[in-house]
Amino acid sequence: MINFTPISSFVGILLILVGILMLTALPFSFNYPGGNWEAFVYSSAITITVGIILWLAKFKNDKSITKRDGYLIVTIGWFSMVAFGSLPYLIGGSIPSLTDAIFETASGVTTTGASILTDIESMPKDILFWRSLTQWIGGLGIIVLTVAIFPLLGFGGIELFSAESPGPTSDKIHPRIQETAKRLWLIYLGLTVLLTGLLWIMDMDFFDAINHAFTTMSTGGFSPQNESLAAYDIPRVQYTLILFMFLAGTNFTVLYLFVTAQFKKVAINDEFKYYLFFTLLFAGLITVLVLWNTDITGEKAFRDSLFQVVSLMTTTGYVSANYLEWGNAVLVLVIILLFLGGSAGSTAGGIKVIRHLVFMKNSFLEFKRILHPRAIVPLRLNGQIVRPQVMTHILVFLLIYLIMFIFGTFVLTVFGLDLETSIGAVATSLGNVGPGIGKVGPVDNFAWLPEGVKWVLSFFMLLGRLELFTILVLFTPFFWKSN
Amino acid sequence: MINFTPISSFVGILLILVGILMLTALPFSFNYPGGNWEAFVYSSAITITVGIILWLAKFKNDKSITKRDGYLIVTIGWFSMVAFGSLPYLIGGSIPSLTDAIFETASGVTTTGASILTDIESMPKDILFWRSLTQWIGGLGIIVLTVAIFPLLGFGGIELFSAESPGPTSDKIHPRIQETAKRLWLIYLGLTVLLTGLLWIMDMDFFDAINHAFTTMSTGGFSPQNESLAAYDIPRVQYTLILFMFLAGTNFTVLYLFVTAQFKKVAINDEFKYYLFFTLLFAGLITVLVLWNTDITGEKAFRDSLFQVVSLMTTTGYVSANYLEWGNAVLVLVIILLFLGGSAGSTAGGIKVIRHLVFMKNSFLEFKRILHPRAIVPLRLNGQIVRPQVMTHILVFLLIYLIMFIFGTFVLTVFGLDLETSIGAVATSLGNVGPGIGKVGPVDNFAWLPEGVKWVLSFFMLLGRLELFTILVLFTPFFWKSN
Repeated sequence: MINFTPISSFVGILLILVGILMLTALPFSFNYPGGNWEAFVYSSAITITVGIILWLAKFKNDKSITKRDGYLIVTIGWFSMVAFGSLPYLIGGSIPSLTDAIFETASGVTTTGASILTDIESMPKDILFWRSLTQWIGGLGIIVLTVAIFPLLGFGGIELFSAESPGPTSDKIHPRIQETAKRLWLIYLGLTVLLTGLLWIMDMDFFDAINHAFTTMSTGGFSPQNESLAAYDIPRVQYTLILFMFLAGTNFTVLYLFVTAQFKKVAINDEFKYYLFFTLLFAGLITVLVLWNTDITGEKAFRDSLFQVVSLMTTTGYVSANYLEWGNAVLVLVIILLFLGGSAGSTAGGIKVIRHLVFMKNSFLEFKRILHPRAIVPLRLNGQIVRPQVMTHILVFLLIYLIMFIFGTFVLTVFGLDLETSIGAVATSLGNVGPGIGKVGPVDNFAWLPEGVKWVLSFFMLLGRLELFTILVLFTPFFWKSN
Repeated sequence: MINFTPISSFVGILLILVGILMLTALPFSFNYPGGNWEAFVYSSAITITVGIILWLAKFKNDKSITKRDGYLIVTIGWFSMVAFGSLPYLIGGSIPSLTDAIFETASGVTTTGASILTDIESMPKDILFWRSLTQWIGGLGIIVLTVAIFPLLGFGGIELFSAESPGPTSDKIHPRIQETAKRLWLIYLGLTVLLTGLLWIMDMDFFDAINHAFTTMSTGGFSPQNESLAAYDIPRVQYTLILFMFLAGTNFTVLYLFVTAQFKKVAINDEFKYYLFFTLLFAGLITVLVLWNTDITGEKAFRDSLFQVVSLMTTTGYVSANYLEWGNAVLVLVIILLFLGGSAGSTAGGIKVIRHLVFMKNSFLEFKRILHPRAIVPLRLNGQIVRPQVMTHILVFLLIYLIMFIFGTFVLTVFGLDLETSIGAVATSLGNVGPGIGKVGPVDNFAWLPEGVKWVLSFFMLLGRLELFTILVLFTPFFWKSN
């Protein structure tokens, strides 16, 4: 039986927190023209009220939390954040369409960054602040999930994600998880404050600085500028953002090791090495193609390439140049980048480097296994052997990801979209990136899409953000069978 | 150390056979205008001479055949067939360009069916006969590989391919393999003769009948008609070909069970069930989309859909209608079909239904494993448990297939091709299908492609035909390390 009490109290607490955070937009309502403080107060009141009711509600069943409850808590929690997070848009009237408000909020809390806004700069500042804040909340949420909840749900791949691998069976787990989570939050918060300061000192006003800091550290990618980061074509700003996007896409445990000067542990981290390697590889390839195919030259070619690569690979989705003008070969590389994802244990979405790494290493070893069928050829990562079940789980994850991508692309073409646009829209939603290819490219937006497509893409953003299985398992017969 | 004696004698025998088969084109040289018997006699003489030299050559090393020798025999054998099979085109001058002749021959012996000929009907009949015969030889070759050689190479997935699973370790294997191979050849030969007769009785002359029979049973897809099977828009002809394409894409062991009335064994064959299911599913979906998007109606809509689905899914590649005019949703389905492949143990190329089936079943079970991590949840196929190693091997195969597809697509875009054309050309080459999408669609041909692209695609046809690992293993360090 499903256990409703913990589900409702968890979701209740979550909504209370979201409701409180809504009020942080109020200073921007009062200090900037066009602000609508009532929208935030009403939204907050509704959200907190529902939160309190759910928190206090006691359902009959009262056993301890099972794994299945965990899936429902995560899924319902995330969907609730989307539903209630859209209230400021709807109540204030800045995004009057329900579909659009849900899309924008889903794109926010999943840290995707795809937008239905056609003229961002015309929006009131309080709404833009809330929009950026939904991403920062989403980033916070994913840290909690990765550190505290996914390991409990026993996602095979996840045990690789934390350098400290908390096992789900140990009794000592709770204090350790709390400790780890606290460290990572501090890093997240610290880097956000640091980046805000840096951007503010350099070339942005406070508003742009804090918004970009929120959406960089969450690898979200919403920008209060219509042109995204092309509006700041200043090397020091763009390199700073490249660095912080890269940090936001790094396993936060690795950042912690850096901060505490444990460089030896960093040195054996395979994912970090390959994350860096892929970044440089793709930036190098694209720089060459940009120099070859376009008029862009010198440092600008390198910076534009690196910025776009880091932005796509970390699933941030900022744009400082239109990569669709860089030729067909870059197009294929961009599609690949949409599927890479940053590091596990970061705020990045997508498949993530560690899964690609397990797949690549294992494929390579498979050739050895073919030649020597009786030999035992284990897969090692960070110097440790990866269990075969974990490996299979990751291979299955990769293929299900692909199947969902193909299925989504098919659905969008049935809605009449062309192939490239469908590929781009689904890949970027599932990977929580932001911009796609075709007619949802870096200088386009998602406003023109049919209503149905917006709902499908919102669902795909959540599917990707919650690592597929969390949501898909609810569609299996096993889940609903009493044990 | 690599063992050269058996390699050279196997390849020698293969070339002698190919040289002899070249002479079967002679009746068409003499009986039809434009024939060039000298081209065939010279080609045959060269091929047989080289074959005899290789056969007789005794290299130093003389141990028994190892697995590694097996990979080299298969790879070198197949590449030699392409090289020598192109001689009639080159010597006769009907395809003067080396690149084009190699492409056409590779497309032949791999049973792909992509062509660089722009006006097929203007070619001499003896050359067209040889062109079809290369596919029939290729089909024969793949039966031998599947039944006799792949199991010895220990391809994990392959043990699933034959309903009788000859194990690679048993001493009794040789007589049984010979017996099985003989049965399957008889079925291949019998169905070819039967189809020739049927087509000849119905609406084709003898030449068209035997050519289409060759290229149907080998799932090759070369047609002596410029318009492929659109030239025979006659329901009885097209339905007959649909049936025989379907049979050619069926596991030949299942056909044997049918012929010997062992229907119970057929009934438990999961791959056959899903092969039929996918055929009907895609034909149904596409029929609906054709009725919705085009002016084609009634039986014609169904027949055109079914014909194209069976042709693509069995990797034959005949065309009776231009599916690129059926809308974007059909385009996605066509891309999926390019990746399905027929059944294992047939002449079809591509990934094959059984691998998709293992993946799908295993993914479904993975959800059960997540919920019950301590339970042992084995994968069953045809009522038997599939070993985890075999399953992992298949998952790795699927992903390497995909990586090669993406890599190939990238290479083609670097040559300047657009995304759709690159996707279509690589998918259809790797899957041994024939037509693609974009500018290599069903009514286009491959003549206009840059030289480099033709070589890349020829390589991809062989890569797909030899199940990836056979060729790719040669690129690993393990292979060349002495044991």
